[in-house]
Amino acid sequence: MNNKIRWLRNKMMGLNLQGMIITNPVNIRYLTNIQAEGILLITRKENIFLTDSRYIEHVNATLTIEDGIVVSNIKNLTLDDYENFFLFCENVGFEESNLTYAKYKEYMHKYRINNFEETEGIIEKQRMIKEDDELNNIKKACSITDNCFEYLKGFIKIGMSEKQVAAEIENFFMKNGADELAFSTIVASGKNSSMPHAVPTDKLIEPGDPITIDMGCKYNGYCSDMTRTIFAGFVPQYVKPVYDLVLKNQIQVSESLKEGVNIKNISKAIENNIKLNGFDMMHSLGHGVGLEIHEYPFFGNRVDFYLKENMVITNEPGIYIPNKFGIRIEDTLLVSKYSSISLTKSDKNYVVI
Amino acid sequence: MNNKIRWLRNKMMGLNLQGMIITNPVNIRYLTNIQAEGILLITRKENIFLTDSRYIEHVNATLTIEDGIVVSNIKNLTLDDYENFFLFCENVGFEESNLTYAKYKEYMHKYRINNFEETEGIIEKQRMIKEDDELNNIKKACSITDNCFEYLKGFIKIGMSEKQVAAEIENFFMKNGADELAFSTIVASGKNSSMPHAVPTDKLIEPGDPITIDMGCKYNGYCSDMTRTIFAGFVPQYVKPVYDLVLKNQIQVSESLKEGVNIKNISKAIENNIKLNGFDMMHSLGHGVGLEIHEYPFFGNRVDFYLKENMVITNEPGIYIPNKFGIRIEDTLLVSKYSSISLTKSDKNYVVI
Repeated sequence: MNNKIRWLRNKMMGLNLQGMIITNPVNIRYLTNIQAEGILLITRKENIFLTDSRYIEHVNATLTIEDGIVVSNIKNLTLDDYENFFLFCENVGFEESNLTYAKYKEYMHKYRINNFEETEGIIEKQRMIKEDDELNNIKKACSITDNCFEYLKGFIKIGMSEKQVAAEIENFFMKNGADELAFSTIVASGKNSSMPHAVPTDKLIEPGDPITIDMGCKYNGYCSDMTRTIFAGFVPQYVKPVYDLVLKNQIQVSESLKEGVNIKNISKAIENNIKLNGFDMMHSLGHGVGLEIHEYPFFGNRVDFYLKENMVITNEPGIYIPNKFGIRIEDTLLVSKYSSISLTKSDKNYVVI
Repeated sequence: MNNKIRWLRNKMMGLNLQGMIITNPVNIRYLTNIQAEGILLITRKENIFLTDSRYIEHVNATLTIEDGIVVSNIKNLTLDDYENFFLFCENVGFEESNLTYAKYKEYMHKYRINNFEETEGIIEKQRMIKEDDELNNIKKACSITDNCFEYLKGFIKIGMSEKQVAAEIENFFMKNGADELAFSTIVASGKNSSMPHAVPTDKLIEPGDPITIDMGCKYNGYCSDMTRTIFAGFVPQYVKPVYDLVLKNQIQVSESLKEGVNIKNISKAIENNIKLNGFDMMHSLGHGVGLEIHEYPFFGNRVDFYLKENMVITNEPGIYIPNKFGIRIEDTLLVSKYSSISLTKSDKNYVVI
């Protein structure tokens, strides 16, 4: 049985759960490496992946004897089989943020579950602490992203459209070993940069435009996330103080984060710094990164949560001046015992193309 | 208020529902044309789309006064607002196959709902009967698909890979007015054609290969679905009887379908025809097509369901001989009062490239 499932079984014991039905495909991938339709049953005796004939062969090829997972074809299961899975289980857990109400009722009935219990994201919370193989995947995704930024510095020219730059980024990722994008790339130039979630348009890049590029890819399923705001031709004088303020705060966060820091405190501190200068943070300071681009922990000034070693998070302060421009600088960070380590390492000083 | 919402309100009255919370984004698009994150509330007095600041502007641009839909920013809602939406409603419906258990509990509490009732896919069932504008979109998607097949007859050559052909199909769709693919294109040649759900591989097309191409695109959100099995160089003698059998049955279905036909009977009849010839149907005979590529009605030999005018369905018998080859022929059909009308019109005789 692999470490991750062992961890989960220990956790379940603490919660007095004798069984669990796992339906969230990201959690199934995390625990088993399986990428196929189906559900994972943690029973008293076994770990069972229930799937159908389309996936049996593929799933068996993914698993090793060490995983300790039995694969079953739902076609061969009888009503008795379903009832036997959780026989003598007092409490069985389920993922209430994933399972539909219809499936909740169906499963409770089909598996004859007495107490079907909400588990409040136990696996999502377990996923916050990354293991070595996970860290290696994230590091690789971050390094592809850094290489992409390096390439962009030579590629982007005044007169190109935002869409053209976004397409080139995606093309670079695919050609350089990424599985897929971690999210839809943002390329927002000039006024468009004032919208934190801008979608690339046909607007052409003009001299003096700040260009906010928010990009990330996946490697073996694990995400990277990085933003840089660069400049076309020159850095306008009126933009410099804003850029410098964002960068100063971004560096302050990187220098402050380590095991034991409370998310609430750091979020409040940065919001205050930015408010004191007459601006507003329009979004949160960061979020966890892993198999999902946004995962636990989520930052916020009311999130009373202490960071731990081997969490991977983003640090992304930004300032947006409506109808004028915006600046955001973001890195993916690894939290360690005494500091944080930036996994994306691209230049954060003024980059002029 | 538009026809579709009026229809739903009538249906709700019959079910003694005074309100409903609609969360399935496909159903929201169907009822309102809105394509944005949010939920639709049908209350005693109003139709309300709840969304956030990211979408308000876009949603207001989509709606007209005739839609009779109020757009609300969740940011501005108080706890009282939530409680007032369904005040004096005895029963409020929800979509149990879409809503998670966690949201079910959250909504019941937040909106103070007394009886939160399952609605058993009432909107999905309403979606089976297509209106004129929906039919026009499906017809357009089918016509793009026919044009693509015509183009493919000149494009595909022995020595090309399945992936290359699939990429060309997708490229054709995008360049000829489709919004996006309706599903991942299947191009399965030679032995690969024996798997109904084959994924395109690097295998090159060889002389004598049957090539099963299953493709479809979306136009204004509405799907097309068509399969043809064509041949590279020549039609092998041993394939001909199988091809002819599939085609004969496919034509028989097209000629039999009309309002009032029971899905169970036609499914059984075709399965029997194929069994009598020593083969097995590995999948169902067809499914509904609309905003989703697979939607109600789903075919099966136990589905006791009578077809009605203006339903759009596929007709796709197939025979698969493991490790040898497979043949599938599929059209998208419109059910009318006295016959069915094929919306995909590509050649079904032997096509040799």
